[in-house]
Amino acid sequence: MKTPDLTLYTDSSPNGFKITIALEELGLPYVLRHVHIDQGEHRQPDFLQLNPHGRIPVLADEDSGVTLFESAAILLYLAEKTGRLLPGNPVMRWSAIKWLMFHASSMGPILGQRVHYELFESTPNQAVIERYRRLTEDTFATLDNQLKDNHWLAGPEYSIADIATFGWMHIAHIIDFDFKDFSHLSAWFERVSQRPAVQRGISLPQPATGP
Amino acid sequence: MKTPDLTLYTDSSPNGFKITIALEELGLPYVLRHVHIDQGEHRQPDFLQLNPHGRIPVLADEDSGVTLFESAAILLYLAEKTGRLLPGNPVMRWSAIKWLMFHASSMGPILGQRVHYELFESTPNQAVIERYRRLTEDTFATLDNQLKDNHWLAGPEYSIADIATFGWMHIAHIIDFDFKDFSHLSAWFERVSQRPAVQRGISLPQPATGP
Repeated sequence: MKTPDLTLYTDSSPNGFKITIALEELGLPYVLRHVHIDQGEHRQPDFLQLNPHGRIPVLADEDSGVTLFESAAILLYLAEKTGRLLPGNPVMRWSAIKWLMFHASSMGPILGQRVHYELFESTPNQAVIERYRRLTEDTFATLDNQLKDNHWLAGPEYSIADIATFGWMHIAHIIDFDFKDFSHLSAWFERVSQRPAVQRGISLPQPATGP
Repeated sequence: MKTPDLTLYTDSSPNGFKITIALEELGLPYVLRHVHIDQGEHRQPDFLQLNPHGRIPVLADEDSGVTLFESAAILLYLAEKTGRLLPGNPVMRWSAIKWLMFHASSMGPILGQRVHYELFESTPNQAVIERYRRLTEDTFATLDNQLKDNHWLAGPEYSIADIATFGWMHIAHIIDFDFKDFSHLSAWFERVSQRPAVQRGISLPQPATGP
């Protein structure tokens, strides 16, 4: 059997799960390469050749010669390669890209800062923690408002915007960042959680653990 | 004369300048609507209808019916609409999208946090400031490495990746976030600065001022 064209370099993390979920949803064959961040493998010269910024995930496609880092770029690439996970209707397609970018720029990075200061900083700073709580809750409220009248983030079609957002919300859920008062967001979270591809994706290369 | 299809809602900010620069580069007619953030206009109901997250820029296109927030989504949209500012070669095209996403997710948000803690926090916290300095310098180093052998971020063609990155580097320059030791990044900054469309874009709706 031919070796798959796609190789995914990843670890169990919010950004990594976005891509395992998408690949499982698309049913694409791929080679999974576990980059052990806890062993510093993302700082090794071989990996820095793939992403000089030293972050997972990285996707390499032997078929096209494209090698990508940044999870949002990889999701756009997989959608374009397959013609799936982005709506065909232009208004809805751009809505999906808009919510993908909202996640990539406005939500994910702020959640990442909250995780750092709330869980990993040796000398907790309450004012900084409170600021990042408030900013993440602003993003939860924005999503909750969008999901009030939409089954998925961009409307009736499940898309890479849902997958990207779920990648981080899954981690938020595991580490008890409370979002149950955002009822539409919570209901959407349950809907996404139940998808078989999501259940497979969040176990690759292994399930995430709490703090 | 027909009113332009495109309306840009913006203010003088790193994310706003990305779009004025792109529109000037493309020579597209557009209506410029100045959203005065210092007067709270981004929190008014009319504007929240356009972006419930209350951020500029927003682009509305009457021709397609698409309304977008998130500067990276708007840049992708303008590139697709015109067939310009993204390379045609697939490997280079995805390189441009990758560096656009690097800016949107990994660099812009971290620069934004550094600006907040270094310039706008009433009780300066040196440990937090130092962390964001280190993280922004990591991104400067990553760009510097990429620009060592590339005239523009994605290779020989100027693209939306350069425009997005310049939007924030212009502000970094104005507020004296030092990057002169990153010689390739500094030389690229000068190259981008000299483009007439860039000089027009950074003056719309008005030039940025220092802190």
